[in-house]
Amino acid sequence: MAATEATVMEKIVSLCKRRGFVFQSSEIYGGLGSVWDYGPLGVALKKNVKDRWWRAMVQARDDIEGLDAAILMHPKVWEASGHVAGFTDPLVDCRTCKSRFRADKIQESNCPQKPSKRPGEHTTCDLTEPRLFNLMFKTFMGPVEEQAAVVFLRPETAQGIYVNYLNVLQASRQKVPFGIAQIGKAFRNEITPGNFIFRTREFEQMEMQFFVEPGTDQEWFERWRQWRMQWHRDLGLTESRLRWHEHGEGELAHYAKAAYDIEYEFPFGWNEIEGVHNRTDFDLQRHQEHSGKKLEWFDQASGKRFLPYIVETSAGADRVTLTVLVDAYREEIVEGETRVVLGFHPTVAPIKAAVLPLMKKEGMPEVADQLYRALRARVPAFYDDSGAIGRRYRRQDEAGTPFCFTVDSETMADRTVTVRERDSMQQERISIDQVPAWVTERLAGSAAG
Amino acid sequence: MAATEATVMEKIVSLCKRRGFVFQSSEIYGGLGSVWDYGPLGVALKKNVKDRWWRAMVQARDDIEGLDAAILMHPKVWEASGHVAGFTDPLVDCRTCKSRFRADKIQESNCPQKPSKRPGEHTTCDLTEPRLFNLMFKTFMGPVEEQAAVVFLRPETAQGIYVNYLNVLQASRQKVPFGIAQIGKAFRNEITPGNFIFRTREFEQMEMQFFVEPGTDQEWFERWRQWRMQWHRDLGLTESRLRWHEHGEGELAHYAKAAYDIEYEFPFGWNEIEGVHNRTDFDLQRHQEHSGKKLEWFDQASGKRFLPYIVETSAGADRVTLTVLVDAYREEIVEGETRVVLGFHPTVAPIKAAVLPLMKKEGMPEVADQLYRALRARVPAFYDDSGAIGRRYRRQDEAGTPFCFTVDSETMADRTVTVRERDSMQQERISIDQVPAWVTERLAGSAAG
Repeated sequence: MAATEATVMEKIVSLCKRRGFVFQSSEIYGGLGSVWDYGPLGVALKKNVKDRWWRAMVQARDDIEGLDAAILMHPKVWEASGHVAGFTDPLVDCRTCKSRFRADKIQESNCPQKPSKRPGEHTTCDLTEPRLFNLMFKTFMGPVEEQAAVVFLRPETAQGIYVNYLNVLQASRQKVPFGIAQIGKAFRNEITPGNFIFRTREFEQMEMQFFVEPGTDQEWFERWRQWRMQWHRDLGLTESRLRWHEHGEGELAHYAKAAYDIEYEFPFGWNEIEGVHNRTDFDLQRHQEHSGKKLEWFDQASGKRFLPYIVETSAGADRVTLTVLVDAYREEIVEGETRVVLGFHPTVAPIKAAVLPLMKKEGMPEVADQLYRALRARVPAFYDDSGAIGRRYRRQDEAGTPFCFTVDSETMADRTVTVRERDSMQQERISIDQVPAWVTERLAGSAAG
Repeated sequence: MAATEATVMEKIVSLCKRRGFVFQSSEIYGGLGSVWDYGPLGVALKKNVKDRWWRAMVQARDDIEGLDAAILMHPKVWEASGHVAGFTDPLVDCRTCKSRFRADKIQESNCPQKPSKRPGEHTTCDLTEPRLFNLMFKTFMGPVEEQAAVVFLRPETAQGIYVNYLNVLQASRQKVPFGIAQIGKAFRNEITPGNFIFRTREFEQMEMQFFVEPGTDQEWFERWRQWRMQWHRDLGLTESRLRWHEHGEGELAHYAKAAYDIEYEFPFGWNEIEGVHNRTDFDLQRHQEHSGKKLEWFDQASGKRFLPYIVETSAGADRVTLTVLVDAYREEIVEGETRVVLGFHPTVAPIKAAVLPLMKKEGMPEVADQLYRALRARVPAFYDDSGAIGRRYRRQDEAGTPFCFTVDSETMADRTVTVRERDSMQQERISIDQVPAWVTERLAGSAAG
């Protein structure tokens, strides 16, 4: 990682703490490695991302149903899925420095004792042979730690969808092709988490599994690729920082016929934020075998009976939130000073509008408070009356608030306020009574984009 | 439990599966004990409950901030909170039948071998002395199961708020008194879970911790009691099935100065759905001691420095969802047939409106589809064109849909549709063009209640 790139991430992590987007977990106890908590602005930002996904995937479509399966599942699910046998990383230990590395990533790792070197590049690092470690978190259900009670924290939400697919199909009266969408936490005991909230051991997925007739799967796969890329563009992400990565033959998972990642160019390089996979009938085959339950679909219209193929779209809620943060972050020199801006798309911005009385006198606070209350009844709004007005604008720029409304002495005379737009810093005056409708209109307009 | 009461719960469980509110986890593998998955209608219902709580607690108030702390936390948090030492149940084993019971609930348990008897009431049950079992789920972070890597799945979300309180205070520029609200999963290794989604090992909490100056705590405690009870009433719950239960001296937790539960009368008896607690400064004291970090607040206006007292409101998202389901469930005899209705308050109903073309011909499906699309752009709506109209009404009654709109031959002549109201079954005709506004108005009206 180049020095300037490290600096950008450091600045974002620091801004996230200062402004209450993301805090390190258990910070007063020295923190817990690679575990993060969302603060007031972060929880609002992430909720906006998730709600936007849920609206696009479930509420705006007739052919997708929602689901919320539990994190704890029957252990046989993970035998059938292949996770018990195959969800492993090869690890090596350094006998000298006691560090642990992924054997397949050792060329990219540094030796903690000599950070300029790769492990094994100098004599003090004496590496063991690789051993396989399962990445699933294991726990015990019921009060006794015995083998029978071992359960896993799910490493992906997808399996919760597969084992419920017939129940959903019957209860919802859907027909194949149809999909099931879910947002929920998953856990992976990664040996090398990192890059802030990009790779964490506890994370939240937004997954959709679309069940189709075999033979129509590639068609649906292409459709979903287009829809999902468009969804990310509609978040306002910079076009040139998004790209497709096709899994080559060596990369393809054993269950996949075709797989593409949507990658984003982070300061630490191009990385996956969503995968679109043609999983064939691998998963339903396995669950059919392991459970002994028929999972076929009988199509009354065509008289065909088949095991559906599955097209999966799997995005990380934390990764998309990080992408939105990174893409929005910019520094500008304005009148000789550095202005830090989070240029969020208005529909994901945690605060949509701020109301700022220029002075704490001459009736301005009362008028501003009325405006604030009228706004807050419609959208998340913020009231700030402390400090110089320029400083207050900067604070809203850092929080990513698209619109600021300033109540000043002119307001008291003619009931107009200054609207200040975050990105252009342009100001105009509008009637105070029009403000709520003005904001709602701009949010509705941007949501359609 | 009386037979008729068992029957009501059985009917609700069965309806929940049939209509896609709640499925048993991993059902195709025989299920996982007391773990449940939310289906399409259930996830919508629970999301409505959670969004309503979030709106009331965070978005509609200036003095409460949102938080989303991770499930995994530093193990020292649970030493400080007292959970490592004290979050235990006393268990006894029966040496004969190998069953396990909570020693303090043994008078209410039945012997699996002779279900008419209590354990110990007959000679085949030979009970061990009680032993203490910790209720926290334990797992291992990092790939090796060694003591240093033991972490717990949080048994409550509250501690995530306490350890972040200074970070939130600083980032949000709030002042005491203020609150932090959080919705998230917690895990308890209950020995006797049960009553459907009432008591489960994995569950979701809606917790708010309000930080106040010592001496003002009882005042705030009383305020929060009133506000929280009103919130449940506003969900449309039957007034006579809600009551307060005050914790007597023997019941009070060691950290609590005063505690009241909001109880609901379920078919299986009166049970807690939310607790309101005056926790004093117990939690912040403990974290201050264990972390070595000062957690005091300095109030600039008064010049006072103090460790805030905490008033907690702690509700179960699954319990409230169950309460809404149970309270809404009713059977009526209509024209000699049983009508099953989920009489949800319109703001929590998963589907707000259904559109039903009377026949699949004469242009009715096209007109109905247009109306459906106009509705769905505003609210969750459903389209159903199959089966007799009476049957379709019954299906919507079971799903709890407040309003049905039927497109018939009159519609084709004069562009009016029949509105059929779920509870009264009254029908009236309105112009098809007015329908979306008509629905939005009724939802807005009921939300204010």
